[in-house]
Amino acid sequence: MRIGELSRRTGVSVPTIKFYVREGLLPAGRLTSPNQAAYDETHVRRLRLIRALMDVGGLSVAAVREVITAVDDPERPVHALLGEAAERMVPRYGGEPAEGEEGDGEEDGGLVEARERVDALIREREWRCFPGSLAAEALAVALAALGAVGHERFAEVLDDYADAAERVARADLEYVGRHVVREELVESVAVGTVLGDALFAALRRLAQIDASDRLFGGKGEKGTEGEKEKE
Amino acid sequence: MRIGELSRRTGVSVPTIKFYVREGLLPAGRLTSPNQAAYDETHVRRLRLIRALMDVGGLSVAAVREVITAVDDPERPVHALLGEAAERMVPRYGGEPAEGEEGDGEEDGGLVEARERVDALIREREWRCFPGSLAAEALAVALAALGAVGHERFAEVLDDYADAAERVARADLEYVGRHVVREELVESVAVGTVLGDALFAALRRLAQIDASDRLFGGKGEKGTEGEKEKE
Repeated sequence: MRIGELSRRTGVSVPTIKFYVREGLLPAGRLTSPNQAAYDETHVRRLRLIRALMDVGGLSVAAVREVITAVDDPERPVHALLGEAAERMVPRYGGEPAEGEEGDGEEDGGLVEARERVDALIREREWRCFPGSLAAEALAVALAALGAVGHERFAEVLDDYADAAERVARADLEYVGRHVVREELVESVAVGTVLGDALFAALRRLAQIDASDRLFGGKGEKGTEGEKEKE
Repeated sequence: MRIGELSRRTGVSVPTIKFYVREGLLPAGRLTSPNQAAYDETHVRRLRLIRALMDVGGLSVAAVREVITAVDDPERPVHALLGEAAERMVPRYGGEPAEGEEGDGEEDGGLVEARERVDALIREREWRCFPGSLAAEALAVALAALGAVGHERFAEVLDDYADAAERVARADLEYVGRHVVREELVESVAVGTVLGDALFAALRRLAQIDASDRLFGGKGEKGTEGEKEKE
């Protein structure tokens, strides 16, 4: 198909498609004449993957490129590939370093302690993970941030969270074992991880709204009456 | 304390502190002379909250302002306040709309179907949530995105995810019930929600790496041998 049809099929504009080709996210079309290229179903599928990772996963062009590189590398063994994909898709923190920020000071101490706590958790649960794992570091950063805002006690929930995370990871991997052929493995992990975070975060909000209504709703607590009927 | 000490205590630079005051995120200091202001512990705490929401939660200045506004409003009943905070902290999707993107086409159909699926899930689980909930819409968007990239089957995990989300939300609310006084309620929900997402996503990665090693590691699958020892 021509680039115009590819654009219509995917809802991605022609200039954006050309941008993705220049950035190495999308293979170029097959040249049918000096200035005309033909695209096929692999391009449709790849474009949808790119858009899902960007629009829903919030990944940058550079992060999408890393995922795509892994997707296109047929050499990696399944276990290494899955683990690496999970590592690469590490939770996105803010990203932009704050303007004029030093980042020194009290936080550093908290991070050392948080890392010890994460190591202890991994040992207790006998989780097998990479030495110096990015995911472990991401967990330590989040724990240290709780401490920095004076909410270190929130880490009490860690064990309940870890139980829930094991349940979710089991569901993820069972899905992979059930359905996914090797060619689609990294793509599945990438999509499932990024969109899975989004799914879970939305479900957590809904479950929180429900739980707060059950715990605190309609008990006549200051000003609660009547509010329940609010549309 | 002077602004210099506030900066040293929090690791946030003086220009950044002034920027937050101008943007309405941080109350101005108490003027002690025409061009000198005094700051106190409330400023230290507020600055740490702002940085946690931005650096770890990835919230924009505008999103932080919304959270702060809720934190500072003493009028809201606990249940409404908790629910609204959970709503406001809706999962962050990509954010930046793609360059030159139309966004029309096949996705719309998927979204209608996804919304029906979300409504059915909420009914089945008897979750009490706001009509037209942002969290429900966020879930529908994530589901539709799975469909758009040809991974609609991944939605099979939805029930396992919802079980895990209920467990996490219960832990969240138990924590609130155990420790949090009203004055700190929204702040706790904001911090717990944003940092809780980060905690959970990191835990999910670690659990995935563990589960993939257990399921696929060392089975002699194509090229797996030896790889396990890789540091």
